[in-house]
Amino acid sequence: MKLKQIIESNDTRTGKTVDLFIQVMIVLSLISFSIETLPDLSEKMVKWLGYLETVTVAVFTIEYVLRIAVADKKMHYILSFYGLIDIVAILPFYLSTGIDLRSIRIFRLFRLFRAFKLLQFSTAANRLGKAFLDVKDEFIIFLMAAMFVLYVSAVGIYYFENEVQPEAFKSVFHCLWWAVATLTTVGYGDVYPITAGGKIFASVIVFIGLGIVAVPTGLIASSLTASMKNTDDEERSGL
Amino acid sequence: MKLKQIIESNDTRTGKTVDLFIQVMIVLSLISFSIETLPDLSEKMVKWLGYLETVTVAVFTIEYVLRIAVADKKMHYILSFYGLIDIVAILPFYLSTGIDLRSIRIFRLFRLFRAFKLLQFSTAANRLGKAFLDVKDEFIIFLMAAMFVLYVSAVGIYYFENEVQPEAFKSVFHCLWWAVATLTTVGYGDVYPITAGGKIFASVIVFIGLGIVAVPTGLIASSLTASMKNTDDEERSGL
Amino acid sequence: MKLKQIIESNDTRTGKTVDLFIQVMIVLSLISFSIETLPDLSEKMVKWLGYLETVTVAVFTIEYVLRIAVADKKMHYILSFYGLIDIVAILPFYLSTGIDLRSIRIFRLFRLFRAFKLLQFSTAANRLGKAFLDVKDEFIIFLMAAMFVLYVSAVGIYYFENEVQPEAFKSVFHCLWWAVATLTTVGYGDVYPITAGGKIFASVIVFIGLGIVAVPTGLIASSLTASMKNTDDEERSGL
Amino acid sequence: MKLKQIIESNDTRTGKTVDLFIQVMIVLSLISFSIETLPDLSEKMVKWLGYLETVTVAVFTIEYVLRIAVADKKMHYILSFYGLIDIVAILPFYLSTGIDLRSIRIFRLFRLFRAFKLLQFSTAANRLGKAFLDVKDEFIIFLMAAMFVLYVSAVGIYYFENEVQPEAFKSVFHCLWWAVATLTTVGYGDVYPITAGGKIFASVIVFIGLGIVAVPTGLIASSLTASMKNTDDEERSGL
Repeated sequence: MKLKQIIESNDTRTGKTVDLFIQVMIVLSLISFSIETLPDLSEKMVKWLGYLETVTVAVFTIEYVLRIAVADKKMHYILSFYGLIDIVAILPFYLSTGIDLRSIRIFRLFRLFRAFKLLQFSTAANRLGKAFLDVKDEFIIFLMAAMFVLYVSAVGIYYFENEVQPEAFKSVFHCLWWAVATLTTVGYGDVYPITAGGKIFASVIVFIGLGIVAVPTGLIASSLTASMKNTDDEERSGL
Repeated sequence: MKLKQIIESNDTRTGKTVDLFIQVMIVLSLISFSIETLPDLSEKMVKWLGYLETVTVAVFTIEYVLRIAVADKKMHYILSFYGLIDIVAILPFYLSTGIDLRSIRIFRLFRLFRAFKLLQFSTAANRLGKAFLDVKDEFIIFLMAAMFVLYVSAVGIYYFENEVQPEAFKSVFHCLWWAVATLTTVGYGDVYPITAGGKIFASVIVFIGLGIVAVPTGLIASSLTASMKNTDDEERSGL
Repeated sequence: MKLKQIIESNDTRTGKTVDLFIQVMIVLSLISFSIETLPDLSEKMVKWLGYLETVTVAVFTIEYVLRIAVADKKMHYILSFYGLIDIVAILPFYLSTGIDLRSIRIFRLFRLFRAFKLLQFSTAANRLGKAFLDVKDEFIIFLMAAMFVLYVSAVGIYYFENEVQPEAFKSVFHCLWWAVATLTTVGYGDVYPITAGGKIFASVIVFIGLGIVAVPTGLIASSLTASMKNTDDEERSGL
Repeated sequence: MKLKQIIESNDTRTGKTVDLFIQVMIVLSLISFSIETLPDLSEKMVKWLGYLETVTVAVFTIEYVLRIAVADKKMHYILSFYGLIDIVAILPFYLSTGIDLRSIRIFRLFRLFRAFKLLQFSTAANRLGKAFLDVKDEFIIFLMAAMFVLYVSAVGIYYFENEVQPEAFKSVFHCLWWAVATLTTVGYGDVYPITAGGKIFASVIVFIGLGIVAVPTGLIASSLTASMKNTDDEERSGL
């Protein structure tokens, strides 16, 4: 069946064109979503964004229906990750036509799931996903170590700073925000130690903790790169 | 002896359940410790946290007694790292029942040592520990280099900024705080050079120093990763 | 032809001297450009900078004419990357003598293109350029992943912070600025989450996102290094 | 000659003790130097720091004289790097006894050179030094690239931000400070773009530039580690 080939793979020219068209629609939809958050939009703009939204949902609905139509195991597709993303991407629109759900903030957020539709077309995403599975074990170990360091940092700074800065270092939970901002070296500057003890503690913990907290980051980076090289080699030797 | 097996190893199903139960108690205890730091707690909450604390200490005490009971060399366990952690985790509670030590801040901090009890159950911690021993020598060298760079940075910025910002750059010790915050790239923004000379000096030192200061961090990260891969390979080839 | 040799290569002593002279002129021109941006320049200084500019343009014009003269395929050189840079570096000066275009800010910016003239003499630039081509594919994949993470971060923080900080997190576009500043760990501190939800979201996204966003950076770094080592080896074995 | 052995090498027990003693004196001297910068020192403290200074200089003078005495090529030692450091470390003290030079800030700074005396005893410093020579070429190339990126960033942000923030982005030189703080991800938050154009430019340049600027840092780190491993292997195989 030719339609099946066009929708499910991108080997043919028509298939590629359809894929590209849907990707452009997704990106347009995400941009229009961002524009809608701008304050002081003109009446005209709102109307045009509304038209675009209607067209987008129409396209996505046709795509969804066709994907079900051409699928061999229809239920399997509907309940698959991408099948659920596809329905979540359009459902809020239909629900909101009956009752006015647009005003509900969280509901509008569902439109964001359209971004995940992009992953469907992306070999890059597949490769990143595979690469991540390779380092899953190490990642979990380091993540636990990072959380341990974060907790110890937070409790430590609480004891040094709580008395002089009762507002910024109100509780251990508030101190965790400081710990995250510091150990990832983001360092906004909204909270920082001012006592001598707090500064010395922060200095020591930054040196010790940086290595542990930086590891998950560096680990993903290096493993992804390595994993991608392997995929390249396999593809090359496979041909 | 069956009890010995349950407590000292986690090969059996019961052993695993006991281990998991104690780990959950530790995490609960750490969370309750964090909640206690929250201001404006309701009377009821304080009471419930007190109950939880009592139960926790009871469990840890039973665990401690059993661990001594099943140990072949009892004194050896009591004086081991984990043995000391175990006693430190419960002792403050018993001491504070007689006299009211709870009000003493530092005393409450001892409860934090319970976090280290978690390490006992963690193969991840063991592997991280071993990996760290592998890079100990390089780490010390770089740490000394980092301290040298930090000191030179602090003295340099002191001479440039002390006159115009006598409060923020009061002494070489105060400047060390700037040096740490800058060379780890945390950069809170509470202290920064404002003179032309200070800015030029800071720019140069950031480029030179970053490499030196970043090395201990990166060194741990890369060596840990390498060391963990080796452990993986050994385990795999060992089977 | 001897002139050709002097201008197009730097094998001879005269060729090297000419190259060095032009490089010094470029750097002087860039410094004088920077000095002109200083406010409160003395009349005398402005006059001297004007003289320097005239001399610089004269030298660059002679260089440009000679390069065309000695080129085998004159049109090919004129339309090449460096040919276009060469003409853009001098054209604004001649245009501005007729009409007073100097006041037009953007026009003055064209003088910056002289910086790119430096690349012509730089084997370093060539090697970096080649090294970058080696990692182009991986770079594009990670860049797309980074953009995806940035977009999701921006939308997420918008929903958490927009209500309490309507000015700083005005729209998704404003939130993108926060996402860039946070995920690159620059963390100026001009915008940061203040709600509990925003802080938790930011903490999670920083850990997940850092790896993805840091990858393009680390990827270029490591690949450039590797690529440069290869070039070194080839050069050595080629001799 | 036994004295020669004690001073120039640390193979013997006495040699090691002498070395350690001098190192302790250096560290004490650096700490006392830092304490002197503290404001509001008591009279007594100042007196004791003065005594310590006298003793330190006496020890360093004896060391210097002995080093000359045992050196085979005396002039060669005097003019060597460590010979110059040794004299600079004590000279200011003797000069300041005649005329009161202590009040001259820059003169006191010379005492800092004592820190470099530490390098003499440090095999770590030697190894770091050797390792650095290995990557010198790559380092210079990347440093030039980094400076190029910094300059382009500074000029770019000047054109975007100068009009709205004439104080913070006064000239290209002032913008360089922003460029350094941003591309090293320190991000103090004293200067940051506020225009839409400036923010977009900053976002793009941070992604492009980070790789280039981060490279010298990462390069030193990775090469030092690699170089140190080689030294380890050589030492091991050499025995």
